Amino acid sequence: MFKLPRLLRLCSRDSVPMKGLFQDPSNDFKLLRSMSSQPGMSASISSSLRDGKSTAKIFAPYSIYKGKAALSADPLLPTFSKLESGGLKVDRRGVIMLTLWPAIGERKYDWDKRQKFALSATEVGSLISLGSKDSCEFFHDPSMLSSNAGQVRKSLSIKAHADGSGYFVSLNVVNNTLKTNDRLVVPVTTAEFAVMRTAFTFALPHIMGWDKYINQHRQSANVSPPKVVPEFMDSEWDR
Amino acid sequence: MFKLPRLLRLCSRDSVPMKGLFQDPSNDFKLLRSMSSQPGMSASISSSLRDGKSTAKIFAPYSIYKGKAALSADPLLPTFSKLESGGLKVDRRGVIMLTLWPAIGERKYDWDKRQKFALSATEVGSLISLGSKDSCEFFHDPSMLSSNAGQVRKSLSIKAHADGSGYFVSLNVVNNTLKTNDRLVVPVTTAEFAVMRTAFTFALPHIMGWDKYINQHRQSANVSPPKVVPEFMDSEWDR
Amino acid sequence: MFKLPRLLRLCSRDSVPMKGLFQDPSNDFKLLRSMSSQPGMSASISSSLRDGKSTAKIFAPYSIYKGKAALSADPLLPTFSKLESGGLKVDRRGVIMLTLWPAIGERKYDWDKRQKFALSATEVGSLISLGSKDSCEFFHDPSMLSSNAGQVRKSLSIKAHADGSGYFVSLNVVNNTLKTNDRLVVPVTTAEFAVMRTAFTFALPHIMGWDKYINQHRQSANVSPPKVVPEFMDSEWDR
Amino acid sequence: MFKLPRLLRLCSRDSVPMKGLFQDPSNDFKLLRSMSSQPGMSASISSSLRDGKSTAKIFAPYSIYKGKAALSADPLLPTFSKLESGGLKVDRRGVIMLTLWPAIGERKYDWDKRQKFALSATEVGSLISLGSKDSCEFFHDPSMLSSNAGQVRKSLSIKAHADGSGYFVSLNVVNNTLKTNDRLVVPVTTAEFAVMRTAFTFALPHIMGWDKYINQHRQSANVSPPKVVPEFMDSEWDR
Repeated sequence: MFKLPRLLRLCSRDSVPMKGLFQDPSNDFKLLRSMSSQPGMSASISSSLRDGKSTAKIFAPYSIYKGKAALSADPLLPTFSKLESGGLKVDRRGVIMLTLWPAIGERKYDWDKRQKFALSATEVGSLISLGSKDSCEFFHDPSMLSSNAGQVRKSLSIKAHADGSGYFVSLNVVNNTLKTNDRLVVPVTTAEFAVMRTAFTFALPHIMGWDKYINQHRQSANVSPPKVVPEFMDSEWDR
Repeated sequence: MFKLPRLLRLCSRDSVPMKGLFQDPSNDFKLLRSMSSQPGMSASISSSLRDGKSTAKIFAPYSIYKGKAALSADPLLPTFSKLESGGLKVDRRGVIMLTLWPAIGERKYDWDKRQKFALSATEVGSLISLGSKDSCEFFHDPSMLSSNAGQVRKSLSIKAHADGSGYFVSLNVVNNTLKTNDRLVVPVTTAEFAVMRTAFTFALPHIMGWDKYINQHRQSANVSPPKVVPEFMDSEWDR
Repeated sequence: MFKLPRLLRLCSRDSVPMKGLFQDPSNDFKLLRSMSSQPGMSASISSSLRDGKSTAKIFAPYSIYKGKAALSADPLLPTFSKLESGGLKVDRRGVIMLTLWPAIGERKYDWDKRQKFALSATEVGSLISLGSKDSCEFFHDPSMLSSNAGQVRKSLSIKAHADGSGYFVSLNVVNNTLKTNDRLVVPVTTAEFAVMRTAFTFALPHIMGWDKYINQHRQSANVSPPKVVPEFMDSEWDR
Repeated sequence: MFKLPRLLRLCSRDSVPMKGLFQDPSNDFKLLRSMSSQPGMSASISSSLRDGKSTAKIFAPYSIYKGKAALSADPLLPTFSKLESGGLKVDRRGVIMLTLWPAIGERKYDWDKRQKFALSATEVGSLISLGSKDSCEFFHDPSMLSSNAGQVRKSLSIKAHADGSGYFVSLNVVNNTLKTNDRLVVPVTTAEFAVMRTAFTFALPHIMGWDKYINQHRQSANVSPPKVVPEFMDSEWDR
């Protein structure tokens, strides 16, 4: 279960779409998508300096457009906080963000009606290990463990076609406060699912933060001339 | 479906082979291949400066030479455009480019008669998830959705051998304007297909641009001393 | 079998938990975990300079909390020593460190009672190749081949559920000197096991040190302008 | 078929073991191995400067010691040559080098009697796609296509155990000139084979040189601030 700070959630609803970027008509709805997904974010935040280097936001979703709705997937990497010891500790786990939004005509989709579902590492594990006849379902509640529990409930189901030729990905969002019940369904072919499985498998160690173990290594070992001192390593015989 | 700007297509037909490089006779046809695949490209373009660093073109195709034709595969990475916000957006999706060209004698192949087929991410997904008895077929039309639709049609089929010992890869190109119909067939063993599957699986996240998410991370996190601020992340509860 | 220098083992028992870091109550037991796993290590060692760059310790374990115990996994990279020739040789093999610790109440776990098990590359190979009905068991003895052999014995077993819906991971530690016999069992779902399999598959080449072969390459080939000289390569016809 | 320049082969037989490094008795035969595998190579060659950075040779083989012989595996990366255009072209394909050497007593192995077998990309593809009941065999002749063809022949066979519990890896080297016939057999468990499969799958894109496509990308795209210009890309509609 991926939990978000309440403040961030509220704040991020103050969405102010930036009109200036809509220059390439053919890309409108994709750009719209990209921008809308960062509501309230100013350019200065998006390219915030980190250690003197800008960190540009990347837009390379894997998107599938079908008759009744579209589906896209993006990895969101974890954030780390620095310990006094100089170490880095995962602060917020990464996710694979799935976004579904409905069709409103031929080749036209309504990004404003999108619904999101953030797959945790374990949910990604479930998805990538699905057999061609398997199904799975995940439930998220943003207010879980609070007094508002159950007000908004999301469920994502992935159901294999009877003939093993693909899956139905369905996202259902019930909002008891707004009295809404949205259901978005995108059929995904075996080929499209293979792309998702491969890309998610690639991304999984990164959303877990495991690439950090490796990059740290790379950094220290690639320097020239290499000079590596034995580390004070954990051992299974330690307490 | 991978669509190309019309201008680029026309322009890239002004092929001017660069003769000066044919120095190593044993490599002739491979070099010929490499060079011809960049028609009209001058050295200054190929090693164009990007941010003060040269970007050299790489030639490391996986090639399979069989009796009647040869097959090679190369990844072509996506291009990105910079947004005003400082972000990067995929501009043109990457592909795995397959090239087939006919044999014209023992261990001799005619590169000038080559035909290409650019596998999209989803087509790569289809290929890497093929079972040992499965087959698949893809159709491309460069003029799709224009008035010239149907003038040139390409189809690539991958058909499993009846005994599961490999596949036939067949590329058929029908050009109604030139009244030509080219068919190139390369039998691919299970071992060769395993190389393709492994290399394509490796390349897939990169042609999708997903490595950018990770590299961005790497860059910002590897700087020393690490100082990571919580990001303004998307959340599944945002709109 | 992963063997540790005796000195390191003894020395690392002089555990001096650093109290100063316990600021975020919600993270207490995780931080406790992180810190305790580096007994006797001072901040200056943890962020020891290597070639003028600090190497920060990373905390991004994959953790699974269940009713009776919790399980977490971390990769520990190999260490290298520099040869006089300038080459790098693996000094101590990397491992995937599994840690199990018991529950002592609802959502409360006792990190002080943790037990560790360091999976070697081959043991990782065994784990990632487990079928959904397979089981495996590993035995470690820190004093193997010494006069104390058999005093402390650890065994880790991974047993598939009868219905293929996951595995039981059990760690048993018998200490004949202390007359203790600890047994920790964590049920792992198929989804959680898929995360472990994917993350361990990702980490395996790195704990083997094989990424070094690649990074060396990357370093020398990425410099601009690229200038690559043929290497003095091993050949299968050499002695 | 991986062919080597004749000169290199002859030259590399002038093996001069460097005695000075044998300081850690427990590592003797491993170091011996490492050193012997670079016969005649001086430190200055091993750490030859490339673009002002030293390229250190890496020793991180995956080794399996069994009753009658030992087996180890190392990746050897391809070499590239620079084209006048500034591009890089694979010069010599990379391989996975297998080395087998006989036991001469309990836990004692004779490195001087080692035999090597360089797996090409396609042979690696064959190995990593082996089912648990499958077998494969490869034949190498260093003098293939020359007048000495058939003088020395090597064959490597990988045969599944009848019960699917692993494989026999057998290397047979017949030297008609020396009238020798060496046969080395190492039984490999499923777990050990899983390590090889995973490590070889990791290494395969690198021995093919495909990581170069990606690293080139990484280099140009990671620079800050990112400024990416559309590339002059190949298209499948080009000739």
